[in-house]
Amino acid sequence: MPRVRRKPWTKDELLKYEDDLVIVSPEKYKGRWKEVFKKDKIHIELGTGKGQFVTTLAEQNKDIGYIGADRVKEVLYETLRKTLSKELDNMKVLWFDVNKIDEAFDEDELDRIYINFCDPWPKRRHRKRRLTHRGFLEKYRKILVKNGEIHLKTDSEILFEFTLNEMLQFGFKLEDISLNLYRDGDPGTIKTEYEEKFIEEGKPIYRLRAINVK
Amino acid sequence: MPRVRRKPWTKDELLKYEDDLVIVSPEKYKGRWKEVFKKDKIHIELGTGKGQFVTTLAEQNKDIGYIGADRVKEVLYETLRKTLSKELDNMKVLWFDVNKIDEAFDEDELDRIYINFCDPWPKRRHRKRRLTHRGFLEKYRKILVKNGEIHLKTDSEILFEFTLNEMLQFGFKLEDISLNLYRDGDPGTIKTEYEEKFIEEGKPIYRLRAINVK
Ligand SMILES: C[S@@+](CC[C@H](N)C(=O)[O-])C[C@H]1O[C@@H](n2cnc3c(N)ncnc32)[C@H](O)[C@@H]1O
Ligand SMILES: C[S@@+](CC[C@H](N)C(=O)[O-])C[C@H]1O[C@@H](n2cnc3c(N)ncnc32)[C@H](O)[C@@H]1O
Repeated sequence: MPRVRRKPWTKDELLKYEDDLVIVSPEKYKGRWKEVFKKDKIHIELGTGKGQFVTTLAEQNKDIGYIGADRVKEVLYETLRKTLSKELDNMKVLWFDVNKIDEAFDEDELDRIYINFCDPWPKRRHRKRRLTHRGFLEKYRKILVKNGEIHLKTDSEILFEFTLNEMLQFGFKLEDISLNLYRDGDPGTIKTEYEEKFIEEGKPIYRLRAINVK
Repeated sequence: MPRVRRKPWTKDELLKYEDDLVIVSPEKYKGRWKEVFKKDKIHIELGTGKGQFVTTLAEQNKDIGYIGADRVKEVLYETLRKTLSKELDNMKVLWFDVNKIDEAFDEDELDRIYINFCDPWPKRRHRKRRLTHRGFLEKYRKILVKNGEIHLKTDSEILFEFTLNEMLQFGFKLEDISLNLYRDGDPGTIKTEYEEKFIEEGKPIYRLRAINVK
């Protein structure tokens, strides 16, 4: 993992926009996210990093409310900057730990979750930290609507194998599995910052879509 | 694919054992395989090749009837030789084309199907030939008992990706997916001839188990 250089001032920058573009206490909005956005559908990216992916989606789909979530303020500051420069009014930056996702969202409140290149935690003893561990999946199932989706991309063979087995065991239907998304060239989907780096390095990218059949 | 050298005499060798160890007209036994074997459970390997895998299983599990099936007589002759030298009485060699599997077996007649390193047919236009294409899966579903299993191993990323998606769409439950069976060393499972070669070449081996939930 490339370390993020600490920039203490990003905290103040984020807090300038608190309760407007930036959410720090999401429990205040639990059960009211659609109202907050004035949108019928809410999509979130967990571990959004610098936010290229989610802000591009928000630009392209004005009828959906988007949340870019991360626990690291330095990267979220970059997501905030993109939100501002693209003048997005259907986008919020959420500074929180995914472990608390069930405190932030009510049942059936989210329509889609994106997870892109989450930390793979390749050691077996760390597997509970993987964002697709059953502990997380149980929370996602509740807050996602019926037939809501999780879209996942990763460069990690270990994380992808784990995710396939974990999701199949815990009630998700899987679709559109790719073991090498760029095998036949660029499919033209939106790329994340990490994805661009991995493509350049020639690493294969794995992809799946999980349906919350409930 | 390494070409098999043509050995016309292997036909006579196989036919010497016809209706005993070697089956050439399986439709004669349709609906009666358990009687033929005098066993409660029948497992088959499709595209068995030289038969190391299935004859080892037959040696280790005397309460199960095993069938090693292939359409190429030259490799089946090697399977026959192993069957003879190991003095297996719970093993048959089936000379047929998997396309005719529904003419050979009745509904609910098989308990397990093994598919190991089947020809990957990597070109999209050849995908109907893959032994895990929906056309084959529909036949397997019928002849397999409820909760019967398909165990598959392959070295082909393309075939494995195709198989995952195809099986998930056509009613199988998947378990025990591995994207790299030898990642943490040798799991000690029985190897096929092709598997030994691929391990030596350092190629990753994919594995899955599919349950026929019916
Ligand atoms: C490897 S980066 C990927 C960033 C971005 N999705 C991309 O593909 O470019 C993983 C991100 O997930 C965040 N993250 C990891 N665990 C998290 C957690 N429990 N809660 C919130 N964010 C987390 C990290 O801070 C980091 O920004
Ligand atoms: C790549 S070899 C693998 C052999 C063996 N399973 C192994 O792993 O060493 C594939 C085998 O499948 C057989 N095969 C392919 N398509 C078949 C079909 N439609 N019916 C019967 N056998 C087939 C081929 O003749 C060949 O022996």
